Amino acid sequence: MVFEGSEKIIEIGLNAQSSALRLQPISFWHALVASAGAEIISHIENDECDAYLLSESSLFVWDGRIRMLTCGATQLSDALVFFIDHFGASTIAYSTYQRKNEYLQQPEIRSFHQDLTYIKGSISGKGYRVGHLDSHHHYLFVSTSNDNSIKPLSTTELLMYHLAGPQADFFRSADQTREAIREQLSLDELFDGFEIDDHLFTPLGYSVNGIKGDRYFTIHITPQELSSYCSFETNIAAKDLQAIVIEQFLTKMAPVRWDLIAFDRPLIQVEQIQESSVTTCSITTDGNYDVHFKHVHQPHKLPVAEVL
Amino acid sequence: MVFEGSEKIIEIGLNAQSSALRLQPISFWHALVASAGAEIISHIENDECDAYLLSESSLFVWDGRIRMLTCGATQLSDALVFFIDHFGASTIAYSTYQRKNEYLQQPEIRSFHQDLTYIKGSISGKGYRVGHLDSHHHYLFVSTSNDNSIKPLSTTELLMYHLAGPQADFFRSADQTREAIREQLSLDELFDGFEIDDHLFTPLGYSVNGIKGDRYFTIHITPQELSSYCSFETNIAAKDLQAIVIEQFLTKMAPVRWDLIAFDRPLIQVEQIQESSVTTCSITTDGNYDVHFKHVHQPHKLPVAEVL
Repeated sequence: MVFEGSEKIIEIGLNAQSSALRLQPISFWHALVASAGAEIISHIENDECDAYLLSESSLFVWDGRIRMLTCGATQLSDALVFFIDHFGASTIAYSTYQRKNEYLQQPEIRSFHQDLTYIKGSISGKGYRVGHLDSHHHYLFVSTSNDNSIKPLSTTELLMYHLAGPQADFFRSADQTREAIREQLSLDELFDGFEIDDHLFTPLGYSVNGIKGDRYFTIHITPQELSSYCSFETNIAAKDLQAIVIEQFLTKMAPVRWDLIAFDRPLIQVEQIQESSVTTCSITTDGNYDVHFKHVHQPHKLPVAEVL
Repeated sequence: MVFEGSEKIIEIGLNAQSSALRLQPISFWHALVASAGAEIISHIENDECDAYLLSESSLFVWDGRIRMLTCGATQLSDALVFFIDHFGASTIAYSTYQRKNEYLQQPEIRSFHQDLTYIKGSISGKGYRVGHLDSHHHYLFVSTSNDNSIKPLSTTELLMYHLAGPQADFFRSADQTREAIREQLSLDELFDGFEIDDHLFTPLGYSVNGIKGDRYFTIHITPQELSSYCSFETNIAAKDLQAIVIEQFLTKMAPVRWDLIAFDRPLIQVEQIQESSVTTCSITTDGNYDVHFKHVHQPHKLPVAEVL
């Protein structure tokens, strides 16, 4: 069965008067991650952020908030509810849950609509969709704001599907090292001064977390030919995140389709990449959280039919 | 929760020496239909075919074969296995199972990949996909042929999504009669001499079966705005099925997307309809069963974002 890379994402901010999350014992983070069906494989930290690399993506912990991504058939809404129930809904300033539509059904986990019902059992909020129902689209849950002084992170996400460039071939090849991958991705140039924690999966796949002060970036690559996928996301300030970062990913990975999503910041304008079929939309959620979405579909020669 | 109309379809042919299926007691057909989570609501018959209208689509029974369609969260592979296990795999000349990709997850039923494993527990065969993995696509299971003299039906399927024409508005209106719908659909002209059995659902929806000798057609309409859908399929001989039938549907329903699928016959060429974005492909399954697929996507103004 083909592995579908697209991550689900949760983010939770605590009220201003809450005690620092980074004081929680490691056993709590193990339990949180396990509640979604994932596992911690390594960890870096600086003065402001703890970054955990997971068997299925990443967890970032600041004193006042967490952001967690998991891919595959993980049930990330379980972690959201686990966290909310642990601290109590009244301590939660905001919480969000994002999930891309899946092309491979995952009957063992809840649908987004079921997630909504499940989450609303612990915290009130509203569901949204960006993107056409029968093209790429993303679902979003945003809880009713409990403390207007605490806002969700401003982030950029770039999700690339069906990688076709020379890098995709490189990632599918057997003889890889983390050093070679970092160089291929130009991590040192693009993310100057970031502390990095990366991991090569067997037989294929690469994940990296980077942190610098309260800023993070993370990249996850599943290069398997039939459903190759690479995601990048960051909270590097919009003014500091150069278009070149996005352009380098698009040039090197040459995805057939990609989604660019900006939360609480404008979409980066990509000049160097020709885009053939483009859908864009924006919504403002309750609590004035702006979400901008762009889906691009390039001409391609993917197999139209196959024997399973 | 939005209702997704796309039907799953099974077809099963018995070996030549088998006794006539139409001699089975009605209790057997009730049990078969119930095994998929559906219900018989009415019935017509002629000398060659029994046609059952179901709460979730249709069942046609000839002496040597059956064809059954069900929509929504029915588990039609259960009916396939129920039938095969009842008669014994050695009596089955062929069996097929078709399923469109779903945009609304149905966690309560098996994925197609799980269906494959489940079905192969009762009969050997192979799975196929036509259409791009991240656009409209259909999965197909075809069992290993057991009697080359018995072939699957030659059929045409037209599946229309996001109906935008005046007929769609008509179908969404409250004051409908079966007579008015038949007239709107020009059933008398298009299907001259067919005996007809139709049903209006509450609050919305219309289904009709038609039979004439060993030929059938069936139309199912779910007009609900967010996921409106109309399907038409028939085994009317390719030489007798005029392009006008397909063109009338496309003109009246004005779907934003449609799939045209032809089994063991060429795709009908539609002249009167301008097609903006088209994907086509063909495969030949084991047992030399030709499947031709065309997906058309028209420019549209569907909502790109929505509050759920």
